[in-house]
Amino acid sequence: MQFTINQLAELLEGEVIGNGESTVDKIGPLDKAGPGTISFLHNPKYEAQLYTTKAEAVIVNKNLQLKQPVQTALIAVDDPYSSLTLLLKQYQKLTEPVKEGVEEPSYISSDVTVGDSVYRGAFSYIGKGSRIGNHVKLYPQVYIGDNVTIGDNTVIFSGAKIYSKSVIGKNCVIHAGAIIGSDGFGFAPQPDGSYESIPQVGNVILEDGVNVGANTTIDCGTMESTVIKKGAKLDNLIQVAHNVEIGEHTAIAAQAGISGSTKVGKNCIIAGQAGITGHLTIADQVTLGAQAGIGKSIKKSGAILLGSPAFEIMDYKRSYAVFKNLPNMAKRINDVEKKVLNLPPSEK
Amino acid sequence: MQFTINQLAELLEGEVIGNGESTVDKIGPLDKAGPGTISFLHNPKYEAQLYTTKAEAVIVNKNLQLKQPVQTALIAVDDPYSSLTLLLKQYQKLTEPVKEGVEEPSYISSDVTVGDSVYRGAFSYIGKGSRIGNHVKLYPQVYIGDNVTIGDNTVIFSGAKIYSKSVIGKNCVIHAGAIIGSDGFGFAPQPDGSYESIPQVGNVILEDGVNVGANTTIDCGTMESTVIKKGAKLDNLIQVAHNVEIGEHTAIAAQAGISGSTKVGKNCIIAGQAGITGHLTIADQVTLGAQAGIGKSIKKSGAILLGSPAFEIMDYKRSYAVFKNLPNMAKRINDVEKKVLNLPPSEK
Amino acid sequence: MQFTINQLAELLEGEVIGNGESTVDKIGPLDKAGPGTISFLHNPKYEAQLYTTKAEAVIVNKNLQLKQPVQTALIAVDDPYSSLTLLLKQYQKLTEPVKEGVEEPSYISSDVTVGDSVYRGAFSYIGKGSRIGNHVKLYPQVYIGDNVTIGDNTVIFSGAKIYSKSVIGKNCVIHAGAIIGSDGFGFAPQPDGSYESIPQVGNVILEDGVNVGANTTIDCGTMESTVIKKGAKLDNLIQVAHNVEIGEHTAIAAQAGISGSTKVGKNCIIAGQAGITGHLTIADQVTLGAQAGIGKSIKKSGAILLGSPAFEIMDYKRSYAVFKNLPNMAKRINDVEKKVLNLPPSEK
Repeated sequence: MQFTINQLAELLEGEVIGNGESTVDKIGPLDKAGPGTISFLHNPKYEAQLYTTKAEAVIVNKNLQLKQPVQTALIAVDDPYSSLTLLLKQYQKLTEPVKEGVEEPSYISSDVTVGDSVYRGAFSYIGKGSRIGNHVKLYPQVYIGDNVTIGDNTVIFSGAKIYSKSVIGKNCVIHAGAIIGSDGFGFAPQPDGSYESIPQVGNVILEDGVNVGANTTIDCGTMESTVIKKGAKLDNLIQVAHNVEIGEHTAIAAQAGISGSTKVGKNCIIAGQAGITGHLTIADQVTLGAQAGIGKSIKKSGAILLGSPAFEIMDYKRSYAVFKNLPNMAKRINDVEKKVLNLPPSEK
Repeated sequence: MQFTINQLAELLEGEVIGNGESTVDKIGPLDKAGPGTISFLHNPKYEAQLYTTKAEAVIVNKNLQLKQPVQTALIAVDDPYSSLTLLLKQYQKLTEPVKEGVEEPSYISSDVTVGDSVYRGAFSYIGKGSRIGNHVKLYPQVYIGDNVTIGDNTVIFSGAKIYSKSVIGKNCVIHAGAIIGSDGFGFAPQPDGSYESIPQVGNVILEDGVNVGANTTIDCGTMESTVIKKGAKLDNLIQVAHNVEIGEHTAIAAQAGISGSTKVGKNCIIAGQAGITGHLTIADQVTLGAQAGIGKSIKKSGAILLGSPAFEIMDYKRSYAVFKNLPNMAKRINDVEKKVLNLPPSEK
Repeated sequence: MQFTINQLAELLEGEVIGNGESTVDKIGPLDKAGPGTISFLHNPKYEAQLYTTKAEAVIVNKNLQLKQPVQTALIAVDDPYSSLTLLLKQYQKLTEPVKEGVEEPSYISSDVTVGDSVYRGAFSYIGKGSRIGNHVKLYPQVYIGDNVTIGDNTVIFSGAKIYSKSVIGKNCVIHAGAIIGSDGFGFAPQPDGSYESIPQVGNVILEDGVNVGANTTIDCGTMESTVIKKGAKLDNLIQVAHNVEIGEHTAIAAQAGISGSTKVGKNCIIAGQAGITGHLTIADQVTLGAQAGIGKSIKKSGAILLGSPAFEIMDYKRSYAVFKNLPNMAKRINDVEKKVLNLPPSEK
């Protein structure tokens, strides 16, 4: 399906600079785009590519000051990132088929309620007493345990496993291989050095609009619920332990881990491979850098931390700059020591 | 199902302080408990909640000295944690249905032996020559390869994959998405920079009472067995490489990784996101802190290490305290240097 | 099946030292081998085991100088590692049955092309328009989305999930639970603090001879392809984010993570739990140590880095050696300061 650049500019409420009559039929990145492709510039880091791209048109910020002439048409908009999102949504609608209906064999237990226009892929499983909302998509090999609730429009990709008693909100997306509601890691040490399992009888609650990445694991609460609040976004391979609470619109990057009973505030950003130990409270709008290790509660809203154990990011960077220079500093201390110790006795 | 506090105190061999006649029907955490709920206090960190909780009754240590009056009944016991475990076990028995029998379609190859009272969920698969013990539960979409042995009472949750030749003991629990027996990462570098795969023909042995968390991966040995010994407890998203041996009753937290051919002693505790490189030996009762990186064998039983590369935890903390202060120290060295170098020439 | 040591020496083009007439029927490691077992010595670290092993025969480097007499026969070869690989391949061929044919129930959509001698395990799923090459093995519970291409001889183990539009080359191995083509983590922050999902309409391309470990996740590109080039080897539980490119014959160890749009060169080695942030370029033949954190592009081919943030490994080790000694250094600065400040005023 083809569109003129003028048509797309109208959709995006942008202004065309250059030839608006040529047509595009794909979306692609600046450095790989060719004729017929529309691209976008959001990250200033890539501005140089704007002057060499072969894209038919590029979506740019209307405040952009061109430093060189361009070969491509431009669509100047308020926010290129949002425009791209809008465009990709249209593209996805036009190119990806809607999954609906039931593929056989699939398994459905007794006392299950299933809403309208649901997709149940082959080899998907729904346990006793579960309730599945309207327009839910369960891809092949998905497992839904007993007494699970899934809200409207939620999509669960192939092979994700939802343990019994989980409560999943509306408009959630759960990617392939994610595990929701597995037992928390709770073991009572015994006098002989062995461990006794502490039964985990709680559940997991995902509120509306939560995204869970591929192979991420979220354990059920011991007696209560592990809760991921409205709009939180979790990337791949993340560990969320029992009794944890993640605040609204908090974003967590891949391979981060949150230990048991920790409460993370809202609108936080947790970078990749960061770890938070158990029983802590993290304030709202906190940012944790990649590989940060958090061993204490963070009370200051908006704090940005780095290091393991982490502290304020600018302080960390200053300490680390000296760290890189430590062998030189050691030598200087040696020199000073020698000099001071060599002072003749009378000097003291 | 309701119980009086007196009844529960009898079960737990504890002493009731307050009204033993009121009834409870649920278990919950101190800060969220309401009427009809029994709770517990184990971690002193949460003692303040004891004085404000709305729980009907709270299990406490019999040595606890109350600092304020409480609104709730108390059950004083020797060990609140063990009492909670006992209570949760009873609760689980009463509330969770026992899975048994076969759901169809499921797949069973030739020459398979299946014990009594086994649960085989829909879309589960059992390969040729495998032997499944009594009371084993294979949840939906579990895969058991060829010639696998599964001991009595072992539970394997949805979607876990057990490669051929694995030997799983009795009373093990394997959570959803765990992978047992995938190929070890073994590649012989070739002169042209490419790699040739080294076939991995060993297997994995889990001894009795081992727990494996969700999406944890345990590779098979190259020629021998990767062995997880009796009672070891592994959390989620852990990597155990080929030929590794994990000692009895060692507990490993989420996202930790053990590289090839390393032998970890018994009764060790490995915290989250810690990593151990290959071909090492770790003594018994060693504790590794979160995100610790181990590059050398640890010979001292009972050692506690932190850092990457890790060393003795108190030494690490002392070094890290100075690290946080390095910019100040750099300034002081500058000042001292200036002062010493400014000494008049005659002083030297 | 039994072979004489002489027969194996002929296969490996090696020279027998000792009794070539005795027979072996298994392969095993030096420290666990017994009569009838052939073993090998590659890592000099284990040479002591050569003098105590009960193996029937041991493959050794022909340049090895024996330090003590041995009880076992030796097969002296140019490269014990390659000889072992060859031997293990033969062993695997003889002992592991070839999977072929279709197990039912399995699911195959319309417009699917399947090559010759393919294995489609029970509960495997193939989406619309997909093309499966010759000799491909799809183990039970594998999911292949729509319009996927799988090259000849590729093996996909149980429960791996391949999203729509993925392109998988020839001779690839994808282990259980790996997820190929899940959505990239792309969200546009909104003024109210919430996130809007950016549709991810790209795909994943694995070139020929790529290995993907168990439960590793590779996200699809936003508009383009995430590409893993020829012969790259990925271990378990690795995260590869959207738009990433991994160069030819690069090896990545378990639990490492590569953030979005980063390009990793060829013949690199990335150790376990290392992390690379987004939008970087890593030169060829770079080595990253375990738990290294990379925040800047690496331009120097062959660089070896350690630390978080990482820098040149020898410099890191020197700095870390001083770090371990920081409390002592702090004390020495205090002493020097006192001494210098105690100088009588006239000294200044």
